Amino acid sequence: MSNRITDLEQLKTLLDKARSRGRNIGFVPTMGYLHDGHLSLIRTSASLHLFTVVSIFVNPLQFGPNEDYDAYPRTEDRDFALAQNAGADLVWFPRKQDIYASQSETTVLPGSLAHKLCGLSRPAFFGGIATVVLKLFNIMGPCHSFFGEKDYQQLTILRRMVLDFFVPVKIVACPTVREADGLAMSSRNVHLKPKDRHLALSLIRSINMAQEMARAGQLSCSQIRHSLIEQWPAGIELDYMDFRDDTQLANVERVEPSTRLFVGAWLNGVRLIDNASLWMQQTTRLQDSLS
Amino acid sequence: MSNRITDLEQLKTLLDKARSRGRNIGFVPTMGYLHDGHLSLIRTSASLHLFTVVSIFVNPLQFGPNEDYDAYPRTEDRDFALAQNAGADLVWFPRKQDIYASQSETTVLPGSLAHKLCGLSRPAFFGGIATVVLKLFNIMGPCHSFFGEKDYQQLTILRRMVLDFFVPVKIVACPTVREADGLAMSSRNVHLKPKDRHLALSLIRSINMAQEMARAGQLSCSQIRHSLIEQWPAGIELDYMDFRDDTQLANVERVEPSTRLFVGAWLNGVRLIDNASLWMQQTTRLQDSLS
Repeated sequence: MSNRITDLEQLKTLLDKARSRGRNIGFVPTMGYLHDGHLSLIRTSASLHLFTVVSIFVNPLQFGPNEDYDAYPRTEDRDFALAQNAGADLVWFPRKQDIYASQSETTVLPGSLAHKLCGLSRPAFFGGIATVVLKLFNIMGPCHSFFGEKDYQQLTILRRMVLDFFVPVKIVACPTVREADGLAMSSRNVHLKPKDRHLALSLIRSINMAQEMARAGQLSCSQIRHSLIEQWPAGIELDYMDFRDDTQLANVERVEPSTRLFVGAWLNGVRLIDNASLWMQQTTRLQDSLS
Repeated sequence: MSNRITDLEQLKTLLDKARSRGRNIGFVPTMGYLHDGHLSLIRTSASLHLFTVVSIFVNPLQFGPNEDYDAYPRTEDRDFALAQNAGADLVWFPRKQDIYASQSETTVLPGSLAHKLCGLSRPAFFGGIATVVLKLFNIMGPCHSFFGEKDYQQLTILRRMVLDFFVPVKIVACPTVREADGLAMSSRNVHLKPKDRHLALSLIRSINMAQEMARAGQLSCSQIRHSLIEQWPAGIELDYMDFRDDTQLANVERVEPSTRLFVGAWLNGVRLIDNASLWMQQTTRLQDSLS
Protein backbone atom coordinates (compact mmCIF):
# COMPACT_ATOMS: atom_id res chain seq x y z
CA MET A 1 0.00 0.00 0.00
CA SER A 2 1.23 3.46 -0.90
CA ASN A 3 0.98 6.38 1.45
CA ARG A 4 -1.18 9.30 0.40
CA ILE A 5 -0.13 12.50 2.14
CA THR A 6 -0.53 16.25 2.09
CA ASP A 7 1.51 17.45 5.04
CA LEU A 8 5.08 18.59 4.27
CA GLU A 9 6.49 17.56 7.63
CA GLN A 10 4.90 14.11 7.34
CA LEU A 11 6.48 13.78 3.90
CA LYS A 12 9.93 14.60 5.31
CA THR A 13 9.47 12.09 8.11
CA LEU A 14 8.53 9.31 5.67
CA LEU A 15 11.44 10.18 3.37
CA ASP A 16 13.89 10.15 6.28
CA LYS A 17 12.49 6.80 7.35
CA ALA A 18 12.94 5.38 3.84
CA ARG A 19 16.50 6.72 3.68
CA SER A 20 17.33 5.31 7.09
CA ARG A 21 16.28 1.92 5.70
CA GLY A 22 18.88 2.44 2.95
CA ARG A 23 16.38 3.33 0.23
CA ASN A 24 17.26 5.91 -2.41
CA ILE A 25 14.47 8.24 -3.53
CA GLY A 26 13.09 8.22 -7.09
CA PHE A 27 10.95 11.26 -7.77
CA VAL A 28 8.23 11.79 -10.38
CA PRO A 29 6.83 15.35 -10.29
CA THR A 30 3.45 15.70 -12.01
CA MET A 31 0.50 18.04 -12.25
CA GLY A 32 -1.90 15.11 -11.91
CA TYR A 33 -4.60 13.86 -14.28
CA LEU A 34 -2.21 10.99 -14.78
CA HIS A 35 -1.99 9.12 -18.08
CA ASP A 36 0.19 6.27 -19.31
CA GLY A 37 3.05 8.70 -19.91
CA HIS A 38 3.22 9.54 -16.21
CA LEU A 39 2.70 5.93 -15.25
CA SER A 40 5.67 4.87 -17.38
CA LEU A 41 7.84 7.29 -15.36
CA ILE A 42 6.56 5.80 -12.10
CA ARG A 43 7.09 2.24 -13.37
CA THR A 44 10.64 3.10 -14.47
CA SER A 45 11.48 4.49 -11.03
CA ALA A 46 9.93 1.48 -9.26
CA SER A 47 11.77 -0.92 -11.59
CA LEU A 48 15.05 0.62 -10.37
CA HIS A 49 14.05 -0.35 -6.81
CA LEU A 50 13.87 3.29 -5.79
CA PHE A 51 11.54 4.49 -3.06
CA THR A 52 9.23 6.12 -5.57
CA VAL A 53 7.52 9.38 -4.69
CA VAL A 54 4.98 11.03 -6.98
CA SER A 55 4.02 14.65 -6.39
CA ILE A 56 0.70 15.88 -7.75
CA PHE A 57 0.64 19.66 -7.77
CA VAL A 58 -0.87 22.02 -10.32
CA ASN A 59 1.87 24.63 -10.22
CA PRO A 60 0.38 28.13 -10.44
CA LEU A 61 3.72 29.74 -11.32
CA GLN A 62 3.91 28.09 -14.75
CA PHE A 63 0.53 29.34 -15.92
CA GLY A 64 0.33 32.65 -17.76
CA PRO A 65 -2.41 35.19 -17.00
CA ASN A 66 -4.64 33.88 -19.83
CA GLU A 67 -3.86 30.21 -19.36
CA ASP A 68 -5.91 27.41 -17.89
CA TYR A 69 -4.76 27.12 -14.23
CA ASP A 70 -8.29 26.94 -12.84
CA ALA A 71 -9.52 24.68 -15.67
CA TYR A 72 -6.58 22.27 -15.37
CA PRO A 73 -8.15 18.87 -14.55
CA ARG A 74 -7.83 17.77 -10.90
CA THR A 75 -8.75 14.15 -10.09
CA GLU A 76 -6.98 13.24 -6.86
CA ASP A 77 -8.59 9.90 -5.99
CA ARG A 78 -8.16 8.56 -9.52
CA ASP A 79 -4.53 9.79 -9.64
CA PHE A 80 -3.67 8.22 -6.29
CA ALA A 81 -5.06 4.83 -7.38
CA LEU A 82 -3.21 4.96 -10.72
CA ALA A 83 0.09 6.00 -9.14
CA GLN A 84 -0.23 3.29 -6.48
CA ASN A 85 -0.92 0.62 -9.10
CA ALA A 86 2.09 1.77 -11.12
CA GLY A 87 4.36 1.21 -8.12
CA ALA A 88 4.52 4.51 -6.23
CA ASP A 89 5.51 4.13 -2.58
CA LEU A 90 4.21 7.55 -1.68
CA VAL A 91 1.92 10.06 -3.39
CA TRP A 92 2.22 13.61 -2.19
CA PHE A 93 -0.40 16.30 -2.80
CA PRO A 94 1.46 19.43 -1.66
CA ARG A 95 -0.43 22.39 -0.26
CA LYS A 96 -0.03 25.55 -2.32
CA GLN A 97 0.93 27.56 0.78
CA ASP A 98 3.72 25.10 1.61
CA ILE A 99 5.32 25.42 -1.84
CA TYR A 100 4.65 29.15 -2.18
CA ALA A 101 4.74 30.72 1.28
CA SER A 102 3.17 34.17 1.41
CA GLN A 103 6.53 36.00 1.36
CA SER A 104 8.08 33.61 -1.17
CA GLU A 105 9.62 35.55 -4.08
CA THR A 106 12.85 33.88 -5.20
CA THR A 107 12.59 32.16 -8.58
CA VAL A 108 14.77 30.30 -11.04
CA LEU A 109 15.53 32.17 -14.25
CA PRO A 110 16.39 29.81 -17.10
CA GLY A 111 18.44 31.38 -19.88
CA SER A 112 18.24 31.22 -23.68
CA LEU A 113 16.85 27.67 -23.68
CA ALA A 114 13.58 29.10 -22.38
CA HIS A 115 13.28 31.80 -25.06
CA LYS A 116 12.52 29.57 -28.04
CA LEU A 117 9.92 26.96 -29.10
CA CYS A 118 7.16 27.01 -26.43
CA GLY A 119 8.92 29.85 -24.62
CA LEU A 120 7.99 32.31 -27.37
CA SER A 121 4.28 32.04 -26.68
CA ARG A 122 4.65 31.27 -22.95
CA PRO A 123 7.31 33.64 -21.55
CA ALA A 124 6.94 32.75 -17.85
CA PHE A 125 6.31 29.03 -18.37
CA PHE A 126 9.75 27.47 -17.97
CA GLY A 127 10.80 29.77 -15.14
CA GLY A 128 7.73 28.57 -13.28
CA ILE A 129 8.55 24.94 -13.95
CA ALA A 130 12.22 25.27 -13.03
CA THR A 131 11.30 27.06 -9.81
CA VAL A 132 8.83 24.47 -8.59
CA VAL A 133 11.05 21.55 -9.61
CA LEU A 134 14.03 23.01 -7.72
CA LYS A 135 11.86 23.46 -4.63
CA LEU A 136 10.59 19.88 -4.90
CA PHE A 137 14.11 18.51 -5.48
CA ASN A 138 15.35 20.23 -2.35
CA ILE A 139 12.43 18.95 -0.31
CA MET A 140 12.78 15.38 -1.62
CA GLY A 141 16.52 14.95 -2.02
CA PRO A 142 15.97 12.32 -4.73
CA CYS A 143 18.88 10.51 -6.35
CA HIS A 144 16.90 10.17 -9.61
CA SER A 145 14.02 12.12 -11.07
CA PHE A 146 12.02 11.08 -14.11
CA PHE A 147 10.72 13.23 -16.98
CA GLY A 148 9.12 12.42 -20.32
CA GLU A 149 10.73 13.27 -23.66
CA LYS A 150 7.36 14.59 -24.83
CA ASP A 151 8.19 17.79 -22.92
CA TYR A 152 11.69 17.87 -24.37
CA GLN A 153 12.32 21.57 -23.89
CA GLN A 154 11.35 21.25 -20.22
CA LEU A 155 13.69 18.26 -19.92
CA THR A 156 16.55 20.22 -21.49
CA ILE A 157 16.00 23.26 -19.27
CA LEU A 158 15.86 21.11 -16.12
CA ARG A 159 19.03 19.25 -17.14
CA ARG A 160 20.72 22.61 -17.64
CA MET A 161 19.47 23.83 -14.23
CA VAL A 162 20.76 20.72 -12.49
CA LEU A 163 24.18 21.15 -14.11
CA ASP A 164 24.34 24.92 -13.53
CA PHE A 165 23.24 24.76 -9.89
CA PHE A 166 25.10 21.50 -9.10
CA VAL A 167 21.87 19.90 -7.88
CA PRO A 168 22.78 16.38 -6.73
CA VAL A 169 20.11 14.53 -8.73
CA LYS A 170 20.20 12.46 -11.90
CA ILE A 171 17.56 13.43 -14.47
CA VAL A 172 16.24 10.36 -16.30
CA ALA A 173 14.53 10.95 -19.66
CA CYS A 174 11.80 8.47 -20.60
CA PRO A 175 10.35 7.97 -24.11
CA THR A 176 7.12 9.65 -25.12
CA VAL A 177 4.12 7.39 -24.61
CA ARG A 178 1.51 7.51 -27.39
CA GLU A 179 -2.10 6.57 -27.98
CA ALA A 180 -2.73 3.70 -30.40
CA ASP A 181 -3.11 6.22 -33.23
CA GLY A 182 0.22 7.89 -32.41
CA LEU A 183 -1.02 10.98 -30.55
CA ALA A 184 1.45 11.87 -27.79
CA MET A 185 -0.23 11.43 -24.41
CA SER A 186 -1.02 14.65 -22.61
CA SER A 187 -3.38 15.66 -19.82
CA ARG A 188 -4.73 18.27 -22.23
CA ASN A 189 -5.88 15.68 -24.82
CA VAL A 190 -9.13 15.39 -22.86
CA HIS A 191 -10.03 18.85 -24.19
CA LEU A 192 -9.82 17.65 -27.84
CA LYS A 193 -13.16 17.28 -29.59
CA PRO A 194 -13.61 13.88 -31.30
CA LYS A 195 -14.08 15.60 -34.64
CA ASP A 196 -10.65 17.27 -34.22
CA ARG A 197 -8.80 14.05 -33.50
CA HIS A 198 -7.56 13.53 -37.06
CA LEU A 199 -6.19 17.09 -37.07
CA ALA A 200 -4.42 16.48 -33.74
CA LEU A 201 -2.45 13.75 -35.48
CA SER A 202 -0.84 16.36 -37.77
CA LEU A 203 2.11 16.66 -35.38
CA ILE A 204 3.10 13.00 -35.30
CA ARG A 205 2.33 12.69 -39.05
CA SER A 206 4.80 15.51 -39.73
CA ILE A 207 7.40 13.86 -37.51
CA ASN A 208 6.93 10.49 -39.20
CA MET A 209 7.15 12.09 -42.63
CA ALA A 210 10.38 13.87 -41.64
CA GLN A 211 11.80 10.58 -40.33
CA GLU A 212 10.86 8.89 -43.64
CA MET A 213 12.52 11.62 -45.66
CA ALA A 214 15.69 11.47 -43.55
CA ARG A 215 15.69 7.69 -43.86
CA ALA A 216 15.44 8.11 -47.63
CA GLY A 217 18.51 10.34 -47.57
CA GLN A 218 16.99 13.82 -47.49
CA LEU A 219 19.09 15.48 -44.77
CA SER A 220 18.36 19.13 -45.61
CA CYS A 221 16.15 20.48 -42.84
CA SER A 222 14.80 23.32 -44.98
CA GLN A 223 13.83 20.84 -47.72
CA ILE A 224 12.11 18.59 -45.20
CA ARG A 225 10.39 21.56 -43.60
CA HIS A 226 9.14 22.76 -46.98
CA SER A 227 7.49 19.39 -47.61
CA LEU A 228 5.97 19.27 -44.12
CA ILE A 229 4.51 22.76 -44.40
CA GLU A 230 3.03 21.88 -47.81
CA GLN A 231 1.05 19.00 -46.36
CA TRP A 232 0.12 20.75 -43.05
CA PRO A 233 -3.70 20.79 -43.03
CA ALA A 234 -6.02 23.76 -42.57
CA GLY A 235 -7.87 23.91 -39.24
CA ILE A 236 -4.85 23.45 -36.97
CA GLU A 237 -2.66 26.48 -36.31
CA LEU A 238 1.06 25.77 -36.49
CA ASP A 239 3.05 27.55 -33.77
CA TYR A 240 6.50 26.23 -34.66
CA MET A 241 8.15 23.46 -36.66
CA ASP A 242 11.84 23.60 -35.79
CA PHE A 243 14.84 21.36 -36.41
CA ARG A 244 17.12 21.67 -33.40
CA ASP A 245 19.97 19.88 -31.67
CA ASP A 246 19.08 17.91 -28.55
CA THR A 247 21.21 19.80 -25.99
CA GLN A 248 21.40 23.49 -26.84
CA LEU A 249 18.17 23.48 -28.85
CA ALA A 250 19.98 25.46 -31.56
CA ASN A 251 18.55 25.49 -35.09
CA VAL A 252 20.31 23.08 -37.43
CA GLU A 253 20.45 22.93 -41.22
CA ARG A 254 21.24 19.26 -41.79
CA VAL A 255 19.96 16.16 -40.01
CA GLU A 256 22.65 14.84 -37.67
CA PRO A 257 22.69 12.31 -34.82
CA SER A 258 21.59 15.02 -32.38
CA THR A 259 18.79 16.47 -34.53
CA ARG A 260 15.21 16.52 -33.29
CA LEU A 261 12.10 17.90 -34.92
CA PHE A 262 9.91 20.00 -32.60
CA VAL A 263 6.30 20.80 -33.51
CA GLY A 264 3.88 23.02 -31.59
CA ALA A 265 0.32 23.84 -32.62
CA TRP A 266 -3.04 25.14 -31.46
CA LEU A 267 -6.21 23.21 -32.22
CA ASN A 268 -9.43 25.01 -31.26
CA GLY A 269 -7.76 26.44 -28.16
CA VAL A 270 -5.96 23.23 -27.17
CA ARG A 271 -2.17 23.40 -27.17
CA LEU A 272 -0.41 20.38 -28.71
CA ILE A 273 3.33 19.68 -28.84
CA ASP A 274 5.42 16.76 -30.01
CA ASN A 275 9.03 16.05 -30.90
CA ALA A 276 11.30 13.18 -31.88
CA SER A 277 14.79 12.39 -33.03
CA LEU A 278 15.21 12.28 -36.79
CA TRP A 279 18.35 10.18 -36.54
CA MET A 280 17.13 6.91 -35.07
CA GLN A 281 15.51 6.13 -38.39
CA GLN A 282 18.64 7.25 -40.19
CA THR A 283 20.74 4.86 -38.11
CA THR A 284 18.32 2.08 -38.94
CA ARG A 285 18.67 2.84 -42.64
CA LEU A 286 22.47 2.79 -42.45
CA GLN A 287 22.38 -0.51 -40.59
CA ASP A 288 19.89 -1.88 -43.12
CA SER A 289 22.15 -0.92 -46.00
CA LEU A 290 25.12 -2.61 -44.29
CA SER A 291 23.32 -5.86 -43.55
CA MET B 1 47.37 22.29 8.54
CA SER B 2 44.57 23.36 6.22
CA ASN B 3 44.23 22.08 2.69
CA ARG B 4 44.53 24.61 -0.11
CA ILE B 5 42.80 23.39 -3.25
CA THR B 6 41.53 24.47 -6.64
CA ASP B 7 40.15 21.31 -8.20
CA LEU B 8 36.39 20.74 -7.81
CA GLU B 9 36.63 16.95 -7.74
CA GLN B 10 39.36 17.08 -5.10
CA LEU B 11 37.13 19.34 -3.04
CA LYS B 12 34.25 16.86 -3.25
CA THR B 13 36.55 14.01 -2.23
CA LEU B 14 37.79 15.90 0.81
CA LEU B 15 34.25 16.90 1.81
CA ASP B 16 33.04 13.30 1.48
CA LYS B 17 35.98 12.17 3.58
CA ALA B 18 35.15 14.73 6.30
CA ARG B 19 31.49 13.70 6.26
CA SER B 20 32.39 10.01 6.46
CA ARG B 21 34.30 10.89 9.63
CA GLY B 22 31.05 12.31 10.98
CA ARG B 23 31.98 15.96 10.50
CA ASN B 24 29.37 18.52 9.48
CA ILE B 25 30.42 21.21 7.04
CA GLY B 26 30.55 24.91 7.98
CA PHE B 27 30.89 27.11 4.93
CA VAL B 28 32.20 30.67 4.62
CA PRO B 29 31.92 31.99 1.05
CA THR B 30 34.15 35.02 0.37
CA MET B 31 35.62 37.01 -2.49
CA GLY B 32 39.01 37.04 -0.79
CA TYR B 33 41.14 39.96 0.40
CA LEU B 34 40.16 38.73 3.83
CA HIS B 35 39.79 41.09 6.76
CA ASP B 36 38.76 40.60 10.37
CA GLY B 37 35.11 40.48 9.33
CA HIS B 38 35.71 37.36 7.25
CA LEU B 39 37.97 35.91 9.91
CA SER B 40 35.25 36.28 12.54
CA LEU B 41 32.97 34.16 10.32
CA ILE B 42 35.65 31.48 10.01
CA ARG B 43 36.32 31.56 13.76
CA THR B 44 32.62 31.22 14.50
CA SER B 45 32.33 28.17 12.24
CA ALA B 46 35.45 26.57 13.73
CA SER B 47 34.21 27.28 17.27
CA LEU B 48 31.11 25.20 16.47
CA HIS B 49 33.44 22.25 15.68
CA LEU B 50 32.35 22.29 12.04
CA PHE B 51 34.65 21.15 9.25
CA THR B 52 35.18 24.71 8.07
CA VAL B 53 35.53 25.42 4.35
CA VAL B 54 36.31 28.88 3.03
CA SER B 55 35.79 29.60 -0.66
CA ILE B 56 37.69 32.47 -2.23
CA PHE B 57 36.15 33.40 -5.55
CA VAL B 58 35.67 36.81 -7.11
CA ASN B 59 32.23 36.19 -8.61
CA PRO B 60 31.98 37.82 -12.05
CA LEU B 61 28.17 37.57 -12.11
CA GLN B 62 27.70 40.10 -9.32
CA PHE B 63 29.69 42.85 -10.99
CA GLY B 64 27.92 45.30 -13.27
CA PRO B 65 29.43 46.40 -16.60
CA ASN B 66 31.04 49.50 -15.06
CA GLU B 67 32.06 47.91 -11.77
CA ASP B 68 35.42 46.83 -10.47
CA TYR B 69 35.66 43.07 -11.26
CA ASP B 70 39.17 43.31 -12.71
CA ALA B 71 40.35 45.77 -10.05
CA TYR B 72 38.95 43.73 -7.15
CA PRO B 73 41.97 42.86 -4.97
CA ARG B 74 43.25 39.27 -5.28
CA THR B 75 45.79 38.10 -2.69
CA GLU B 76 45.64 34.31 -2.58
CA ASP B 77 48.70 33.46 -0.46
CA ARG B 78 47.84 36.05 2.15
CA ASP B 79 44.19 34.92 2.22
CA PHE B 80 45.13 31.27 2.60
CA ALA B 81 47.41 32.01 5.56
CA LEU B 82 44.80 34.19 7.26
CA ALA B 83 41.99 31.65 6.76
CA GLN B 84 44.21 28.85 8.04
CA ASN B 85 45.15 30.81 11.12
CA ALA B 86 41.50 31.58 11.81
CA GLY B 87 40.67 27.87 11.86
CA ALA B 88 39.69 26.91 8.31
CA ASP B 89 40.11 23.20 7.57
CA LEU B 90 40.04 23.76 3.84
CA VAL B 91 40.43 26.80 1.60
CA TRP B 92 39.01 26.44 -1.89
CA PHE B 93 39.94 28.70 -4.80
CA PRO B 94 37.35 27.65 -7.42
CA ARG B 95 38.15 27.91 -11.11
CA LYS B 96 35.84 30.28 -12.97
CA GLN B 97 35.10 27.62 -15.61
CA ASP B 98 33.99 25.16 -12.90
CA ILE B 99 31.48 27.57 -11.41
CA TYR B 100 30.37 29.02 -14.75
CA ALA B 101 30.66 26.33 -17.41
CA SER B 102 30.59 27.69 -20.94
CA GLN B 103 26.93 26.74 -21.52
CA SER B 104 25.86 27.73 -18.00
CA GLU B 105 22.87 30.07 -18.13
CA THR B 106 20.46 29.31 -15.28
CA THR B 107 20.39 31.98 -12.59
CA VAL B 108 18.56 32.79 -9.38
CA LEU B 109 16.17 35.73 -9.58
CA PRO B 110 15.58 37.31 -6.17
CA GLY B 111 12.33 39.25 -5.87
CA SER B 112 11.42 42.60 -4.36
CA LEU B 113 14.13 42.39 -1.67
CA ALA B 114 16.70 42.95 -4.42
CA HIS B 115 15.02 46.06 -5.85
CA LYS B 116 15.72 48.47 -3.01
CA LEU B 117 18.73 49.89 -1.12
CA CYS B 118 21.86 48.72 -2.99
CA GLY B 119 19.69 47.06 -5.64
CA LEU B 120 18.62 50.43 -7.03
CA SER B 121 22.12 51.32 -8.19
CA ARG B 122 23.24 47.71 -8.81
CA PRO B 123 20.38 45.91 -10.59
CA ALA B 124 22.19 42.61 -11.31
CA PHE B 125 24.15 42.49 -8.05
CA PHE B 126 21.98 40.34 -5.79
CA GLY B 127 20.96 37.93 -8.54
CA GLY B 128 24.66 37.31 -9.13
CA ILE B 129 25.28 36.73 -5.44
CA ALA B 130 22.27 34.45 -4.97
CA THR B 131 23.27 32.42 -8.03
CA VAL B 132 26.84 31.79 -6.96
CA VAL B 133 25.87 31.08 -3.36
CA LEU B 134 23.28 28.50 -4.45
CA LYS B 135 25.88 26.81 -6.66
CA LEU B 136 28.38 26.76 -3.81
CA PHE B 137 25.78 25.47 -1.32
CA ASN B 138 24.93 22.59 -3.65
CA ILE B 139 28.59 21.74 -4.16
CA MET B 140 29.42 21.91 -0.45
CA GLY B 141 26.28 20.57 1.20
CA PRO B 142 27.04 22.58 4.36
CA CYS B 143 24.86 22.35 7.43
CA HIS B 144 25.72 25.96 8.36
CA SER B 145 26.90 28.92 6.33
CA PHE B 146 28.15 32.19 7.78
CA PHE B 147 27.49 35.74 6.59
CA GLY B 148 28.21 39.16 8.07
CA GLU B 149 25.49 41.60 9.06
CA LYS B 150 27.45 44.35 7.33
CA ASP B 151 25.94 43.07 4.06
CA TYR B 152 22.50 42.90 5.61
CA GLN B 153 20.52 43.07 2.37
CA GLN B 154 22.57 40.18 0.98
CA LEU B 155 21.94 38.23 4.19
CA THR B 156 18.19 38.87 3.94
CA ILE B 157 18.03 37.84 0.26
CA LEU B 158 19.99 34.64 0.92
CA ARG B 159 17.78 33.77 3.90
CA ARG B 160 14.75 34.28 1.64
CA MET B 161 16.31 32.10 -1.09
CA VAL B 162 17.06 29.31 1.38
CA LEU B 163 13.46 29.40 2.63
CA ASP B 164 11.91 29.69 -0.84
CA PHE B 165 14.01 26.92 -2.39
CA PHE B 166 14.03 24.68 0.72
CA VAL B 167 17.83 24.62 0.69
CA PRO B 168 18.89 22.40 3.62
CA VAL B 169 21.38 24.85 5.19
CA LYS B 170 21.23 27.11 8.22
CA ILE B 171 22.30 30.70 7.54
CA VAL B 172 24.19 32.15 10.51
CA ALA B 173 24.41 35.96 10.75
CA CYS B 174 27.52 37.36 12.45
CA PRO B 175 27.92 40.92 13.78
CA THR B 176 29.66 43.57 11.70
CA VAL B 177 33.35 43.85 12.58
CA ARG B 178 34.69 47.41 12.72
CA GLU B 179 38.00 49.22 12.67
CA ALA B 180 39.04 50.95 15.89
CA ASP B 181 37.46 54.20 14.64
CA GLY B 182 34.14 52.46 13.88
CA LEU B 183 34.45 52.05 10.11
CA ALA B 184 32.78 48.80 9.03
CA MET B 185 35.41 46.44 7.64
CA SER B 186 35.26 45.94 3.89
CA SER B 187 37.68 44.73 1.24
CA ARG B 188 37.01 48.03 -0.53
CA ASN B 189 38.32 50.16 2.36
CA VAL B 190 41.81 49.75 0.89
CA HIS B 191 40.72 52.10 -1.90
CA LEU B 192 39.96 54.92 0.57
CA LYS B 193 42.44 57.77 0.55
CA PRO B 194 43.75 58.68 4.03
CA LYS B 195 42.43 62.23 3.64
CA ASP B 196 38.92 60.78 3.04
CA ARG B 197 38.94 58.63 6.15
CA HIS B 198 37.03 61.10 8.33
CA LEU B 199 34.34 61.36 5.63
CA ALA B 200 34.09 57.55 5.44
CA LEU B 201 33.04 57.62 9.09
CA SER B 202 29.86 59.55 8.16
CA LEU B 203 27.92 56.29 7.90
CA ILE B 204 28.65 54.96 11.37
CA ARG B 205 28.33 58.48 12.81
CA SER B 206 24.82 58.69 11.36
CA ILE B 207 23.97 55.28 12.75
CA ASN B 208 25.29 56.17 16.18
CA MET B 209 23.40 59.46 16.15
CA ALA B 210 20.19 57.62 15.21
CA GLN B 211 20.76 55.13 18.01
CA GLU B 212 21.30 58.01 20.45
CA MET B 213 18.12 59.72 19.32
CA ALA B 214 16.12 56.51 19.64
CA ARG B 215 17.63 55.91 23.06
CA ALA B 216 16.55 59.41 24.03
CA GLY B 217 12.99 58.55 23.01
CA GLN B 218 12.81 59.95 19.48
CA LEU B 219 11.13 57.09 17.64
CA SER B 220 9.95 58.96 14.54
CA CYS B 221 12.07 57.78 11.63
CA SER B 222 11.39 60.88 9.55
CA GLN B 223 12.46 63.12 12.47
CA ILE B 224 15.64 61.11 12.96
CA ARG B 225 16.31 61.12 9.21
CA HIS B 226 15.86 64.89 9.09
CA SER B 227 18.53 65.37 11.77
CA LEU B 228 20.91 62.91 10.09
CA ILE B 229 20.58 64.60 6.71
CA GLU B 230 21.22 68.00 8.30
CA GLN B 231 24.57 66.90 9.67
CA TRP B 232 25.61 64.81 6.60
CA PRO B 233 28.87 66.39 5.40
CA ALA B 234 29.73 67.67 1.91
CA GLY B 235 32.24 65.56 -0.04
CA ILE B 236 30.52 62.19 0.43
CA GLU B 237 27.55 61.39 -1.79
CA LEU B 238 24.63 59.82 0.03
CA ASP B 239 22.97 57.01 -1.97
CA TYR B 240 20.31 56.05 0.59
CA MET B 241 19.49 56.45 4.26
CA ASP B 242 16.53 54.17 4.94
CA PHE B 243 14.74 52.92 8.04
CA ARG B 244 13.54 49.40 7.32
CA ASP B 245 12.38 46.26 9.10
CA ASP B 246 14.91 43.45 9.37
CA THR B 247 13.05 40.73 7.39
CA GLN B 248 11.06 42.27 4.54
CA LEU B 249 13.23 45.40 4.34
CA ALA B 250 10.04 47.46 4.18
CA ASN B 251 10.19 51.16 5.05
CA VAL B 252 9.04 51.91 8.59
CA GLU B 253 7.84 55.13 10.19
CA ARG B 254 8.58 54.43 13.86
CA VAL B 255 11.52 52.70 15.50
CA GLU B 256 10.49 49.21 16.59
CA PRO B 257 12.39 46.09 17.75
CA SER B 258 12.88 45.06 14.11
CA THR B 259 14.01 48.47 12.80
CA ARG B 260 17.42 48.91 11.20
CA LEU B 261 19.00 51.98 9.67
CA PHE B 262 20.66 51.35 6.29
CA VAL B 263 23.14 53.85 4.84
CA GLY B 264 24.84 53.69 1.43
CA ALA B 265 27.23 56.30 0.03
CA TRP B 266 29.90 56.99 -2.57
CA LEU B 267 33.21 58.54 -1.56
CA ASN B 268 35.48 59.46 -4.49
CA GLY B 269 34.39 56.36 -6.40
CA VAL B 270 34.46 54.00 -3.42
CA ARG B 271 31.16 52.45 -2.40
CA LEU B 272 30.48 52.35 1.34
CA ILE B 273 27.55 50.74 3.16
CA ASP B 274 26.65 50.21 6.78
CA ASN B 275 23.60 49.30 8.84
CA ALA B 276 22.58 48.53 12.40
CA SER B 277 19.60 47.88 14.57
CA LEU B 278 18.18 50.97 16.24
CA TRP B 279 16.50 48.94 18.92
CA MET B 280 19.44 47.37 20.79
CA GLN B 281 20.23 50.78 22.19
CA GLN B 282 16.58 51.29 22.91
CA THR B 283 16.53 48.03 24.85
CA THR B 284 19.64 49.13 26.70
CA ARG B 285 17.96 52.41 27.59
CA LEU B 286 14.91 50.60 28.91
CA GLN B 287 17.09 48.28 30.94
CA ASP B 288 19.11 51.25 32.17
CA SER B 289 15.97 53.01 33.28
CA LEU B 290 14.82 49.89 35.11
CA SER B 291 18.09 49.28 36.93
